[in-house]
Amino acid sequence: MKTDIEIAQEATVLPITEIAEKAGLKPSEIEPYGYDKAKINLDKDVKRDHEGKLILVTSINPTPAGEGKSTVTVGLADALQAAGKKTMIALREPSLGPVMGMKGGATGGGYSQVVPMADINLHFTGDFHALTAAHDLLAAALDNSIYQGNPLHIDQRRVIWKRVLDINDRALRHTTIGLGGPTSGVPREDGFDITVASEMMAILTLSTDLMDLKRRVNNIVVAYDFDKQPVTVKDLGVAGAITVLLKDAIKPNLVQTLAHTPAVIHGGPFANIAQGTNSVLATRTALTLADYAVTEAGFGADLGGEKFMDIKVPKLGKEPDVVVVVATVRALKHHGGQALADLKQEDLSALEAGVANLQQNIKAMKRYGVPVVVAVNRFTDDTEAELAMVREAAEAVGAQAVTADVWAKGGAGATDLAELVVEKAAEKHGFSPLYEENDSAVEKMNKIVQNIYGGAGVELSDKAKKQLATFAEQGWDKLPIVMAKTQYSLSDDAKKLGAPKDFTIHVREFVPKLGAGFLVALTGNVLTMPGLPKHPAAMDIDIDEKGRITGLF
Amino acid sequence: MKTDIEIAQEATVLPITEIAEKAGLKPSEIEPYGYDKAKINLDKDVKRDHEGKLILVTSINPTPAGEGKSTVTVGLADALQAAGKKTMIALREPSLGPVMGMKGGATGGGYSQVVPMADINLHFTGDFHALTAAHDLLAAALDNSIYQGNPLHIDQRRVIWKRVLDINDRALRHTTIGLGGPTSGVPREDGFDITVASEMMAILTLSTDLMDLKRRVNNIVVAYDFDKQPVTVKDLGVAGAITVLLKDAIKPNLVQTLAHTPAVIHGGPFANIAQGTNSVLATRTALTLADYAVTEAGFGADLGGEKFMDIKVPKLGKEPDVVVVVATVRALKHHGGQALADLKQEDLSALEAGVANLQQNIKAMKRYGVPVVVAVNRFTDDTEAELAMVREAAEAVGAQAVTADVWAKGGAGATDLAELVVEKAAEKHGFSPLYEENDSAVEKMNKIVQNIYGGAGVELSDKAKKQLATFAEQGWDKLPIVMAKTQYSLSDDAKKLGAPKDFTIHVREFVPKLGAGFLVALTGNVLTMPGLPKHPAAMDIDIDEKGRITGLF
Repeated sequence: MKTDIEIAQEATVLPITEIAEKAGLKPSEIEPYGYDKAKINLDKDVKRDHEGKLILVTSINPTPAGEGKSTVTVGLADALQAAGKKTMIALREPSLGPVMGMKGGATGGGYSQVVPMADINLHFTGDFHALTAAHDLLAAALDNSIYQGNPLHIDQRRVIWKRVLDINDRALRHTTIGLGGPTSGVPREDGFDITVASEMMAILTLSTDLMDLKRRVNNIVVAYDFDKQPVTVKDLGVAGAITVLLKDAIKPNLVQTLAHTPAVIHGGPFANIAQGTNSVLATRTALTLADYAVTEAGFGADLGGEKFMDIKVPKLGKEPDVVVVVATVRALKHHGGQALADLKQEDLSALEAGVANLQQNIKAMKRYGVPVVVAVNRFTDDTEAELAMVREAAEAVGAQAVTADVWAKGGAGATDLAELVVEKAAEKHGFSPLYEENDSAVEKMNKIVQNIYGGAGVELSDKAKKQLATFAEQGWDKLPIVMAKTQYSLSDDAKKLGAPKDFTIHVREFVPKLGAGFLVALTGNVLTMPGLPKHPAAMDIDIDEKGRITGLF
Repeated sequence: MKTDIEIAQEATVLPITEIAEKAGLKPSEIEPYGYDKAKINLDKDVKRDHEGKLILVTSINPTPAGEGKSTVTVGLADALQAAGKKTMIALREPSLGPVMGMKGGATGGGYSQVVPMADINLHFTGDFHALTAAHDLLAAALDNSIYQGNPLHIDQRRVIWKRVLDINDRALRHTTIGLGGPTSGVPREDGFDITVASEMMAILTLSTDLMDLKRRVNNIVVAYDFDKQPVTVKDLGVAGAITVLLKDAIKPNLVQTLAHTPAVIHGGPFANIAQGTNSVLATRTALTLADYAVTEAGFGADLGGEKFMDIKVPKLGKEPDVVVVVATVRALKHHGGQALADLKQEDLSALEAGVANLQQNIKAMKRYGVPVVVAVNRFTDDTEAELAMVREAAEAVGAQAVTADVWAKGGAGATDLAELVVEKAAEKHGFSPLYEENDSAVEKMNKIVQNIYGGAGVELSDKAKKQLATFAEQGWDKLPIVMAKTQYSLSDDAKKLGAPKDFTIHVREFVPKLGAGFLVALTGNVLTMPGLPKHPAAMDIDIDEKGRITGLF
């Protein structure tokens, strides 16, 4: 069997100028990066009143068995294109850290990939590197302000702006900096996150233009002073420089699928501590240019799906016309208790327990009043009895389910899914927001836990309660909530698979993200800097004298 | 008076495809990055036996008064082009850290600039970001190896591979990492350098192709084990991944001057702890395509010039046909003792003392047997008497001097200089290497100090002596030497301006750079991570809704 990188390197990739033309872009609206990548710079003078249908692909809670959400997203878009629909994909950019670590890239798989696969998974057009530089320039300016007489009275024990690198590097999670004597700064505790966890990433992907980005950057709270008052980027005076560093990163990137469907790939915020979906500008670009804009949200519907609806939709000004929940029989059996080693065996009793996870994620998405369908990403070992059980479980909660076989067949494996999506997208539907702006933070979280996770409600630590009181004084208490929870369970306990009941979500601490415009509620330990495994993927990656890359996946 | 960025933003920039055609590149030999930048990918099947003349621009020891070396380099090239000579420039890429700090960019100035100025000074084509990622992936792999059972027996007190960021951030000079308990690594002392100080940068700019780069990366010594034996990248097994990360960064970048002279800008190693000049591939590209390849070396002739001759020329396989030493009357007066505040006043006695610095730098370059000329970068306050004194001083040591007025006039201000360069380049000359491979390290350094700096010789610390003994056991003792010395003085004392005599250079410590293939001799304190000043340049940089950038210089 060919590897993803082999399939990608053997593919016929059209010049990006051709893809741009197909997408309806003028030559002056793209800035090529090599022959197969481009930045999109939409001309505001071109009248485009068009708005396509928005298809959101999400999934059950992820398991080590794999769901193939990106692969289904790409396959579905290729199937829509093959059916004669003008289609564009809007996806997140992969982070380099996991590519070199364990997870691999995020460009789909098999015959449902976006290309150039290697470039997209490596530096792409430099967006993440620009974010790293912007984030770390801010950190340097902050420590420099402390060093140069500390005119803002920054309490170095209360700095909340860490540094970032787009590398999986656990040794940088907790550091001390400013050591080495009086000429090398002021010592304090610090740490590094991975770049995708930066608030800069959340800002970049929520901004509607460069001036909106600058306004948001100015609002970032980086520390507290000795009077416990917030210190912002505005106080440090470097928002202009940061905006200059992000002037190209804010432009969405154009690439293509193996079937030459135009794909916009832009931004990649975490789906736990941020909104977990590609940029507002990227999705808006796809909606403006295409009749079907197929996009994706990170992790399961409980995390990425909920944040898409509650955080992104208001900024985008458009709700999904269809939500596709991706599941695999294997993953559902694992949710129902079957061991990973046994997943090739039919196990209807495990599956019967596991489908509850799918059902809760369907119910979560249906809560918003939009049509929901299920895509069962097919594996060779799936039995007919198993597939039938999944279909029935989905239908029992009001979602039609079809199988897709996109890894091996590309768009041809998603014909039924595309047909169903087109049919559902034509249905009239409303949109019911889950919470109101004026709901208290606790009310908002309770609505998320009860309606989306299927749990009882939230419980706040003393620290979290105290924080909310302070936030009320600052006028921050009515901001939307981003729940930072394990992706593996609907609850905050990664080990509770399936669809746990009567659980409480424990909020340990809030992190105010005033630039992004939300409060992050931390439940349990959220890892914002991954580590490398014993045998990192980097050890298997190589390139030969002809430029052929191996080991990238 | 217009600022550099205003002049640059008002310029007519030709499409990079036109510049490429003018330079003699086939359309398939460039990869455009936007409309005004491209990567060059020379087709090995195209026969090009051509080799142009190599013009090296260097300078006196830099002072706070400024010399304008890059500006003269660009102006000279534009003048050569205007005279009908097929010309290309080969320059280093600027580092983002100083752009946001104090020094500003490195794209020339006034009407002698390379453009797009802002892009080149910011992320350009992402080369430095790729180097940062490659460097820090290696650091993460190293700490991960220690964490995952330490199979290589790395002594965490003897790790010599630090981390890098392309930001001026003094608080990262000395850090402790791996804190936070057993799941977050193994605690040890660490620190960050600026990206341009990375051995990866030295390697990228010395490599002749991607496989040569991989070979060099494998050779990097990152630490010592508990038996004090070197641990290399080969042992860690990540050279393939690092090479993949640098697959595009190794390709030279094509841009243009304001006068549309093609310019190759690529790589930017420090001129103290590395060779301080653009990549071998970039200079080779300019030599292959043009009749006159104008290039530059960092800091003064004693640092960048010497390293160009002793480190780069052997890899390039070509010596300079003319060396241009840039000086200003202001800077020479400062070398002779005139205070910075008084530099607008004529002061022939200060100048008489100061020209000794110019003379020593001329003698240093003449030592190699190549023609040397002096370009006096003219300022409005320079008097005729002062200019005459500089000319006479240069002629007294065998170098003709002409004035250039390139900031205000561009190439038109360097007509005399271009004529002189063409004349000298036609002269027959030899090339006498300063030292032989088989000279001992001490012999090599004595030759540098005596012939280039005009000093007495070197003195080694006990530690440095002990290191040389160890290096002899490892077989490293015959590597070329990179002297890491202050750029401000010919001696190792930054305060000794002019041309000090009878001084000794004190070598504190050696740093073996087995990937780059040289030993760095540290004299005094060499700062490899700059700090931000009280009022960083970043505070004045801004961008408006039309994309106009201000405050970049």
